[in-house]
Amino acid sequence: MSSTHPRQSIGVIGATGVVGREMLSILGDRGVPADSIRCIASERSRGKQVPFGQDMLAVQGLDETSISDLDVALFAAGSECARRWAPIAVDSGAVVIDNSSAFRGDESVPLVIPEVNGSLLDGFQGPGLIANPNCSTIIALMSVTPIHRAAGIRRMSIATYQSVSGAGGSAMEELERQVEEHASGRAPTSNVLPSQALFNVFAHESPVGPDGFNEEERKMRNEGRRILDAPGLEITATCVRVGVPRAHAMAIDLELERGLDAAEARELLAHAPGVRVVDDPESGRFPESIDAAGADEILVGRFRNHPDRSDQRGLILFAAGDQLRKGAALNAIQILEQLPATPCPGGATGG
Amino acid sequence: MSSTHPRQSIGVIGATGVVGREMLSILGDRGVPADSIRCIASERSRGKQVPFGQDMLAVQGLDETSISDLDVALFAAGSECARRWAPIAVDSGAVVIDNSSAFRGDESVPLVIPEVNGSLLDGFQGPGLIANPNCSTIIALMSVTPIHRAAGIRRMSIATYQSVSGAGGSAMEELERQVEEHASGRAPTSNVLPSQALFNVFAHESPVGPDGFNEEERKMRNEGRRILDAPGLEITATCVRVGVPRAHAMAIDLELERGLDAAEARELLAHAPGVRVVDDPESGRFPESIDAAGADEILVGRFRNHPDRSDQRGLILFAAGDQLRKGAALNAIQILEQLPATPCPGGATGG
Repeated sequence: MSSTHPRQSIGVIGATGVVGREMLSILGDRGVPADSIRCIASERSRGKQVPFGQDMLAVQGLDETSISDLDVALFAAGSECARRWAPIAVDSGAVVIDNSSAFRGDESVPLVIPEVNGSLLDGFQGPGLIANPNCSTIIALMSVTPIHRAAGIRRMSIATYQSVSGAGGSAMEELERQVEEHASGRAPTSNVLPSQALFNVFAHESPVGPDGFNEEERKMRNEGRRILDAPGLEITATCVRVGVPRAHAMAIDLELERGLDAAEARELLAHAPGVRVVDDPESGRFPESIDAAGADEILVGRFRNHPDRSDQRGLILFAAGDQLRKGAALNAIQILEQLPATPCPGGATGG
Repeated sequence: MSSTHPRQSIGVIGATGVVGREMLSILGDRGVPADSIRCIASERSRGKQVPFGQDMLAVQGLDETSISDLDVALFAAGSECARRWAPIAVDSGAVVIDNSSAFRGDESVPLVIPEVNGSLLDGFQGPGLIANPNCSTIIALMSVTPIHRAAGIRRMSIATYQSVSGAGGSAMEELERQVEEHASGRAPTSNVLPSQALFNVFAHESPVGPDGFNEEERKMRNEGRRILDAPGLEITATCVRVGVPRAHAMAIDLELERGLDAAEARELLAHAPGVRVVDDPESGRFPESIDAAGADEILVGRFRNHPDRSDQRGLILFAAGDQLRKGAALNAIQILEQLPATPCPGGATGG
């Protein structure tokens, strides 16, 4: 997957957060070539230590100095932080890969899932910005892109089963605490998410617009259309939180332009990069949130043709993927790996 | 809701199970007129005590004697038990209201949700059988019937978030045990359901057919069509378990025959019996599994028109309902309450 790169200096902005830590872990595991890894976070995290492989790295505060002279800046912070600091990082020469939604609607900024529209990176010349898509959008598109290419998706209706990790590490801690509270006979308390996650199912907490769709649902629609370069594609989602720590699942109902047998869809997915088909009716094994947690692949299964459409233009499936990995950190690092080798300000040359 | 009834003898078959106990609780709470309540369960439960109001009732073993001379037999046992014993109860003069799937496909047996097709009971003459529908089907149809009547549903695509209670009391105990195991640092164990329910999302455990749909999904389709008397209605479901004790939730995507504004749909549901609209974008309050647990009403909200259909023929909503109450026990007792008063073998007359 990765081409040879010059040694480079990589910064992780938001390094103490749950996505930032996952980025550091993946950078280490995949042996991404780097001259230096700079861990950057808000002032209050300055001096903290975060793990990188066998080492612990000291966290620097985010300021004009720490954000400068990076070859690659992986932003795992919020939109507000990205809007303020990503342009500064770019001005000082970096390629910024931003996990927030700050630049996803900016047509001049590539919005990339490497397996789906990675060719957008072919001619990419840094410094500049690349946006990492919304987690649910990545998981959905990884599951349907091979089908879209084969049969053309006309309409996509999605219901998500989203883990709490999308609301950050504090939401994951809250779910853990709710388990302890319940086990010790106390009523679970909620401070991070608006509703109790344990034993519950509730609407995604993002703001609801005048049309009734919440922000997460809007992202799946807008980003999905943009990434598939299909502005007329009908995408609607119902985004829902469940009491799961880190993997998102989703039921996806498709109307296709051309008929596609469920078995063919299964076969297409079985050969798709970054996807693992889990679909064994005999043993009852299908994608589960627990199995997706910690996995790099998106698990896909439960392929069914709509029984009322003899033209096989209705197809239903189910997917699960790790929100922190492919839904966030892994996708960002795959983008980094796929960047064309560029001269490095530090002077090191590619191998 | 309830018409006047003669004093009657009511039997609950499966009285020690989670649905049977709920039936007893509801019979007591609603003051259903009864000369006697007979609690019946399998031989191994004989002599156990189950609560009824302030009293404890002794459980009788299921045999030819205990099942006879009932005016109403509420079956809260499995299909196999119902197939064997319900006809015997009917032969001895009872109206059987069966919560299993044994007779739901039998065209001669009414399949009833009182708020939806309760008129089927108008001329009902016992003894005889009445089938209580599948829990997810009840919750879905309570949520969409007013919409169907106003605008005609052509296609209904459902994704469920089903609690473990549908798999019985032992599955509820298993979820509780998994919480304790996790809280004490042990790996949660699963013996009742095929997958861990805590922190997980997984396909409904019912058998999968050659078309890829599982039995629960098939029930939602077949029973939904039958209850709405709409044999051509396109219904597909993806039935999924989540780590929730007793309430089911579901995302429902509708294609309508005629346009219906989301606000109108909301208004229709606000006036529908047995439904409570929970839909406040301002405060972010929408139907949640936790709020549905223990409630008699089905919570419905998140009404949205499909943004790509200017004809307003696309409508999406979200619902949650207590699987044990309206999804099972309450619906059965509403059927009982709606039965026309019939002469009672014991000779008592209606008040």
